[in-house]
Amino acid sequence: MIDLRSDTVTRPTPGMRQAIANAEVGDDVWGDDPTTRALEEEVAELLGKEAALFTTSGVMANQLAIAIQTRPGDEVIVGEGAHVMWNEAAAGAALSGVQFAVAGQDGFFTADDVEAAIKPRLNWLPRTSLVCVENTLNRAGGRVFPQATVLAIAERIAPHGFGFHLDGARLWNASVATGLSVKELAAPFHTTSVCFSKGLGAPVGSALTGPAALIEEARRLRHRWGGGMRQSGILTAGARYALAHHRARLVEDHANARHLAELLSGPAARAAGIFVDVHKVESNIVNIDLDVAAAPVVDAARDLGVLISATALRRLRAVTHLDVSRSQIDEAAAILRRAAEACRAGHE
Amino acid sequence: MIDLRSDTVTRPTPGMRQAIANAEVGDDVWGDDPTTRALEEEVAELLGKEAALFTTSGVMANQLAIAIQTRPGDEVIVGEGAHVMWNEAAAGAALSGVQFAVAGQDGFFTADDVEAAIKPRLNWLPRTSLVCVENTLNRAGGRVFPQATVLAIAERIAPHGFGFHLDGARLWNASVATGLSVKELAAPFHTTSVCFSKGLGAPVGSALTGPAALIEEARRLRHRWGGGMRQSGILTAGARYALAHHRARLVEDHANARHLAELLSGPAARAAGIFVDVHKVESNIVNIDLDVAAAPVVDAARDLGVLISATALRRLRAVTHLDVSRSQIDEAAAILRRAAEACRAGHE
Amino acid sequence: MIDLRSDTVTRPTPGMRQAIANAEVGDDVWGDDPTTRALEEEVAELLGKEAALFTTSGVMANQLAIAIQTRPGDEVIVGEGAHVMWNEAAAGAALSGVQFAVAGQDGFFTADDVEAAIKPRLNWLPRTSLVCVENTLNRAGGRVFPQATVLAIAERIAPHGFGFHLDGARLWNASVATGLSVKELAAPFHTTSVCFSKGLGAPVGSALTGPAALIEEARRLRHRWGGGMRQSGILTAGARYALAHHRARLVEDHANARHLAELLSGPAARAAGIFVDVHKVESNIVNIDLDVAAAPVVDAARDLGVLISATALRRLRAVTHLDVSRSQIDEAAAILRRAAEACRAGHE
Amino acid sequence: MIDLRSDTVTRPTPGMRQAIANAEVGDDVWGDDPTTRALEEEVAELLGKEAALFTTSGVMANQLAIAIQTRPGDEVIVGEGAHVMWNEAAAGAALSGVQFAVAGQDGFFTADDVEAAIKPRLNWLPRTSLVCVENTLNRAGGRVFPQATVLAIAERIAPHGFGFHLDGARLWNASVATGLSVKELAAPFHTTSVCFSKGLGAPVGSALTGPAALIEEARRLRHRWGGGMRQSGILTAGARYALAHHRARLVEDHANARHLAELLSGPAARAAGIFVDVHKVESNIVNIDLDVAAAPVVDAARDLGVLISATALRRLRAVTHLDVSRSQIDEAAAILRRAAEACRAGHE
Repeated sequence: MIDLRSDTVTRPTPGMRQAIANAEVGDDVWGDDPTTRALEEEVAELLGKEAALFTTSGVMANQLAIAIQTRPGDEVIVGEGAHVMWNEAAAGAALSGVQFAVAGQDGFFTADDVEAAIKPRLNWLPRTSLVCVENTLNRAGGRVFPQATVLAIAERIAPHGFGFHLDGARLWNASVATGLSVKELAAPFHTTSVCFSKGLGAPVGSALTGPAALIEEARRLRHRWGGGMRQSGILTAGARYALAHHRARLVEDHANARHLAELLSGPAARAAGIFVDVHKVESNIVNIDLDVAAAPVVDAARDLGVLISATALRRLRAVTHLDVSRSQIDEAAAILRRAAEACRAGHE
Repeated sequence: MIDLRSDTVTRPTPGMRQAIANAEVGDDVWGDDPTTRALEEEVAELLGKEAALFTTSGVMANQLAIAIQTRPGDEVIVGEGAHVMWNEAAAGAALSGVQFAVAGQDGFFTADDVEAAIKPRLNWLPRTSLVCVENTLNRAGGRVFPQATVLAIAERIAPHGFGFHLDGARLWNASVATGLSVKELAAPFHTTSVCFSKGLGAPVGSALTGPAALIEEARRLRHRWGGGMRQSGILTAGARYALAHHRARLVEDHANARHLAELLSGPAARAAGIFVDVHKVESNIVNIDLDVAAAPVVDAARDLGVLISATALRRLRAVTHLDVSRSQIDEAAAILRRAAEACRAGHE
Repeated sequence: MIDLRSDTVTRPTPGMRQAIANAEVGDDVWGDDPTTRALEEEVAELLGKEAALFTTSGVMANQLAIAIQTRPGDEVIVGEGAHVMWNEAAAGAALSGVQFAVAGQDGFFTADDVEAAIKPRLNWLPRTSLVCVENTLNRAGGRVFPQATVLAIAERIAPHGFGFHLDGARLWNASVATGLSVKELAAPFHTTSVCFSKGLGAPVGSALTGPAALIEEARRLRHRWGGGMRQSGILTAGARYALAHHRARLVEDHANARHLAELLSGPAARAAGIFVDVHKVESNIVNIDLDVAAAPVVDAARDLGVLISATALRRLRAVTHLDVSRSQIDEAAAILRRAAEACRAGHE
Repeated sequence: MIDLRSDTVTRPTPGMRQAIANAEVGDDVWGDDPTTRALEEEVAELLGKEAALFTTSGVMANQLAIAIQTRPGDEVIVGEGAHVMWNEAAAGAALSGVQFAVAGQDGFFTADDVEAAIKPRLNWLPRTSLVCVENTLNRAGGRVFPQATVLAIAERIAPHGFGFHLDGARLWNASVATGLSVKELAAPFHTTSVCFSKGLGAPVGSALTGPAALIEEARRLRHRWGGGMRQSGILTAGARYALAHHRARLVEDHANARHLAELLSGPAARAAGIFVDVHKVESNIVNIDLDVAAAPVVDAARDLGVLISATALRRLRAVTHLDVSRSQIDEAAAILRRAAEACRAGHE
């Protein structure tokens, strides 16, 4: 099977498995795991933040960022379809008691959009206290949130004293796509999350980075939420290996995504009712619009050997990663065309 | 001063004050207040529900409805700018751990809009469990939510087992505006809140109505939230008086609102940069759009003897009520025109 | 009926009803109710605090104090059977996400007890952040919490930066019992709640007092919890009347309680299986221990004309107040003896 | 160093590391990880429950059990010093909005104790809804909670419809100590947690078992709390290895604990101010009482090569496990005696 559902499906390579098997470990609840400590120091350094905390998921990293920068009843400004709002099981409300206000469109928003979303400080209104940017934007097909806009937002909200969080689950991809370092990309934010188990290919884990005092508070909350682990070096060894060996190769995933987009944007694809805007493919995600319902195409593709996600009624999302080669991309494009054609035929 | 800020500003009449002074009371925490019991029975009967609970505010009535029909992490479908989402200090997130999903536009939404907003039952998504309608719609200028749409939504969500709540803070106005009884208007909903301290003119209080078991649960939560009162008959005597004496007269408020709208929609008003759509004035609220910023107009009007609210950058909201007479409406219209003209002149 | 269940059952006097009927009112959500503003200023002054907030119940006042002085996951040190822990429907956990640690015995605790209850700052432990004293102590039969102990606790916790809250639902009684002013009694605390609807006889209401910034935050939370009221002057007029006219007379309630205790501590009472420790009756509450189950005695007393509460398997609690005269105390004592005798006889 | 601080400090053996390196994995958020699925099936079978869920910690397993069997504002009955109350960072209050009521003493409680702790169903009281037993009892020094008592409690609470949860972090030890299977021990409970990273020696992980519907709800909440992992087979391979290879050997840890207790209970120990009650050593934990402060003894022991925890002012706790041999126990006993003597000498 060619699995394009997500870059979360990657499996550890032999080298990574070896690193995991050899990991030096200790009880991380007591701060005694040397591999985890090393990872946290590396990530903090890499992101240019004072401190970092390893977490079992991006959900935990993002929701800790929300919890430590808000109080119950606060409002968090996000883009349309933000992962922290849509894909984290309403954790913002359930764990931190906050609600979201949506700014802008398609996940993008400007400093003016933020300003328009700020609530006046009246007792009957939610209290705005945090702004979250996602980069790259999952729902917008892996597009990059413009850094100039980030800087403008940071400047605009500074006088309000709001927190500013970057959901950088795919920040490694944003860095590859823009040529800016992850440190530069993260610089305007107080806190930044990054993920090791998406494009980087580690089995499990994310990290939250930020000021030391906030990260200490996040460490306390992580324990409360059940995320305190004992010999976590078993996981962080994988994350360290991923950082060392799988960052540079993301450029291949981007090239593969673009290649897939090109294969699915020609006349043949259009004839099959497949529409892809190549210009919007900026990293490792391809949004594929159909003129038929997506769910049956997902089923048909599976039968032909391709796993892919439906993210809207008539939209598929393909994600390239470590476990998909260039030749598999060619094969997948052909299968997707066939699947779409079959569904259109069945539909007629 | 002519106070058009809201119908919440009404003050008790001499008759109502007398009823309050003479109220028979007991300890309502123990169910011993006869006036409160009588009010709760009257309201339940009036709304066609099994039971009712008196609350100190509409916020409490609505948020209890949310709390008893959801679990933390659930999602509640509402219209744009819904009072339960915007004007209740993020209580949904802070007290019940739920988040809101917005359907439709301007507060209106259809059964199709609801269906599009329902989240699939996946572990990483919020769990849709409640739909809230507001009638009349505050932010849309007191417009009526169409009952046919309510019925269509009720039918569409029934198979899902969702709760269905009506924020009827101004349901009395919706009844007057449509000619439908409040019982008919509330019938499709599991729970309905109504308010005594807006157009009805009681000093304090709302009620939540619904199935007896849910209302008993709400009674428990009301105590937890600090809303359990001792001799609450002092307040419910006012509410009973309001129900008996001030419902029929709401027709005057509607006529006054329409009159104000007409006074502010002629050429003179337009010349002053004031725009009112008379056809959208369906009850006791008038949205007044300006071609200048609203805040200075609010200040100028106050200096001239009219209190009014700014609800958007260039929008005023006027609300008619018990304490505003027809002649005051004429006066207010003239003052608003003058205030707007003065601000435009100052602006030039 | 002679109602000794609680001092919450008092009904407004004619003078108080007149004050309520004549109350000058406005919309308190917007800060426009002059009677409520006056009450809040009076109470702040009386308690020697910067600011005060009127609330619909003691539950709300206490739980707001907890909410504004803690974060979710914090721990609050209280005495055994503290009202904030036992009688407020688990609001501490449900609204503020805090848990309670019990110090000392019977509601009393010392500075050493507090110190022993403080948790070290480890990630897996709750974080101690607030200490609450109750004065007088409800469950201990209206006994006074020693002011010297309060001062010692205040001194001990100061270096930790903990909040210090006084649940002063019956602080008026503590003042009468000790001869210390409520200002002196409240001085060591950051926040203090007081109640108007217990011994003072107002129909509804409590207040939270403390530093202005904390009280402003409490005002915001009060709105979120549904405690924001419109023309609240209707209630605060009763509270102001109670403050002006019913404080001095609490001495009568205390004398009546002591009289009742004496009537129930002689040989006749002991013969009926009734045991009261007169020396523990310090204010308006009498704990009455029985040698039979309390519930049937409650029923028997009701049939004979006395309402009283069972607060433990073999314990009754009698509370004296405004609506119980000295001669009714004599009558009640006789009825309670008869009820207890009847139940013992039935038991044999 | 001989590390007796806890059985959480165990490090994976070469065989376990090999199993981890070879784990077959998939994306467990989508239910695609075969190793995790296999572990969950094994554990459910072993505990005699319908379903099981892997979690990153015992905190998460226990707190999920609380969350799925309560509503905010409920009360959970536990023993003194219960891990769910004391050692889980107040997660019960912060995540589920519940409070704890303590029954019995030293962690043990009877059916009568439970009955006395049940709150009547009144609106102002917390609502009892769950009872939690811990077995073995951590704070009581690894003692076994008697199964006859468990059965009596189950029978007594059944009519109330309460949930019944077993915190079985060391249930494997209870099984070894009693000769009862973990299935028998877990049978009276609705939900049971077990841990793989304590005595069993896996690097990370616990499981929650129970009825399928409850476990599905726990799975949803696990994602919300950030515990949804991708290739979790890396961890569950370790847990499976531990189950297969490290259960039988727990008998050695028990023998070692008893040996240590005996070494520390003779005249020589008593002369050093060390007091151990051998009869209370039932599994792998030894509580060691001192006649001097524990903290300096911890420091002195560390300098001599033994790590141990202070769990009270004058109490040490030693835990035996996989990484401590019989000869190390002899050595540790000698060092502890020397450390205690040194501290007493310094104290004099």
